[in-house]
Amino acid sequence: MDRIVECVPNFSEGRRPEVVGWLAEAVESVEGALVLGTHIDPDHNRSVVTFVAPPETVVEAALRVVARAAELIDLSAHAGQHPRMGACDVLPFVPVRGITVEECVALAHEAGRRIWDELGIPVYFYESAALRAERRNLADVRRGGFELLREQIGTVPERAPDVGEARVHPTAGACIVGVRPLLIAYNVTLNTRDLAVAKRVARRVRERDGGLLHLKALGFELESRGVVQVSMNLTSYERTNLHQAFEAVRREAEREGVEVLASELVGLVPQAALDRAAAHFLQLENYSPDLVLENRIAAAIERRKGGRP
Amino acid sequence: MDRIVECVPNFSEGRRPEVVGWLAEAVESVEGALVLGTHIDPDHNRSVVTFVAPPETVVEAALRVVARAAELIDLSAHAGQHPRMGACDVLPFVPVRGITVEECVALAHEAGRRIWDELGIPVYFYESAALRAERRNLADVRRGGFELLREQIGTVPERAPDVGEARVHPTAGACIVGVRPLLIAYNVTLNTRDLAVAKRVARRVRERDGGLLHLKALGFELESRGVVQVSMNLTSYERTNLHQAFEAVRREAEREGVEVLASELVGLVPQAALDRAAAHFLQLENYSPDLVLENRIAAAIERRKGGRP
Repeated sequence: MDRIVECVPNFSEGRRPEVVGWLAEAVESVEGALVLGTHIDPDHNRSVVTFVAPPETVVEAALRVVARAAELIDLSAHAGQHPRMGACDVLPFVPVRGITVEECVALAHEAGRRIWDELGIPVYFYESAALRAERRNLADVRRGGFELLREQIGTVPERAPDVGEARVHPTAGACIVGVRPLLIAYNVTLNTRDLAVAKRVARRVRERDGGLLHLKALGFELESRGVVQVSMNLTSYERTNLHQAFEAVRREAEREGVEVLASELVGLVPQAALDRAAAHFLQLENYSPDLVLENRIAAAIERRKGGRP
Repeated sequence: MDRIVECVPNFSEGRRPEVVGWLAEAVESVEGALVLGTHIDPDHNRSVVTFVAPPETVVEAALRVVARAAELIDLSAHAGQHPRMGACDVLPFVPVRGITVEECVALAHEAGRRIWDELGIPVYFYESAALRAERRNLADVRRGGFELLREQIGTVPERAPDVGEARVHPTAGACIVGVRPLLIAYNVTLNTRDLAVAKRVARRVRERDGGLLHLKALGFELESRGVVQVSMNLTSYERTNLHQAFEAVRREAEREGVEVLASELVGLVPQAALDRAAAHFLQLENYSPDLVLENRIAAAIERRKGGRP
């Protein structure tokens, strides 16, 4: 696949694994759509299906899984602490390879229109796909959840959907469709029990407080392990990569007299992020993906497919 | 490709690029054989074609390229400083993925028998494919080159080939077939003009003198750049990887009061070697290839090909 869009729908169902299996099947009923993983969270009664597809078929795959969720999940009977307002609650499109944010926004808008036209579910657009500034932030769109939305959607003008009539779908609620960057979730653990240290380090490294661009960070306690953790999201690894985040945390921890114990990835990481980290630490001056044996094999396979000698 | 053998034939032709093109074509006339690169060296009048193939077709691809070299190259008219004794001088098989050294030895022996049976070129086996201890080292097999071999092959018993009659092919000479490990060629440059420093560092890090296992190292001067270089071969990156070589060189250079300037890869590197370096420096405690987005996509493609849901 030369052009790849990732799509990460969140569903209001975390206690019936068979439902998550059927949702994944709905995705893979579409040519070129590949499920990379599913995650089920019984505590929050939510689940996530991560899939990739080329731009030509990603909207169709999204439509089928939203339709299947509307059949299988009855939001009016759903309980769970996590805020949610749809059977398929959030539908983010993520540019991965060979596609721009703008192109993904066009796909998200197409998906939103079809979700209303074909399924009768009203749609809100968030983050890069937002049509109103006050809807960029997902938490703002979702505040009060399904129950509050059901009351307000027809009476409070600023809660009217971006696509569709101002009424929730009786069982599937509403769907929040957006475009967000590929993000890397990355944690670094520190050799101390002092949460204040983790919080200070997090503050010093994150963009919001003058640290590294495209880096979000929070300090947490890992009680069971007796250590603390700086938990980070890197929203543009091309600009701020793992090694820069790691080194910034290590430097700020050292200032506190604390050592880095280890780091961990939460979820998937693009190959390029690891490669860039290796090249950085090895001071590799001639790194290029073209030097990697597996990439050369893949390129030779593509070349032969294309019929060139 | 689940199972991959790399094959890196060396040819006694480095001044006619069209010949190298035809040799590459001969390789790719075989199903599943993929040329990853060609290298032509006019100074030494030699060339290299690097290709990969599954074990089922790698011998056929090797046969075709040795046959084509015998047609195109006349060793009796060849000049060049580099020792050589065949049109296709050396034919190493390299286990890359899903195949053992022993299986590659069986492939090398099959290729050797066919090179004699079908092309009438006598064959010597070297390194892991050697049938006699004194032929493990390629340089020992090739000593004196084509001209000396032509004199001795029929008269000196220890120069008799491993396969075939004791006479050279009149224009294609003989072929040396072997199995060697996948190696990473990796150089680290040091911020000094003092060659003795590079030589001492090389000696301290290499296996031969009590350093790291599976690491060969030499010190060189890079006159044009006014620095020196520790030039290394890693013959088992699973045991001694880039990061261990880099850190050993850096440590020994520091003992000499010298800084590492940069490093460079010469030729191809397996993805796993870069990944392990990244995981080491980032202190990533949960690294697995399964966390890499591209690997997950490839696995999902394979899963769907296999018809599993």
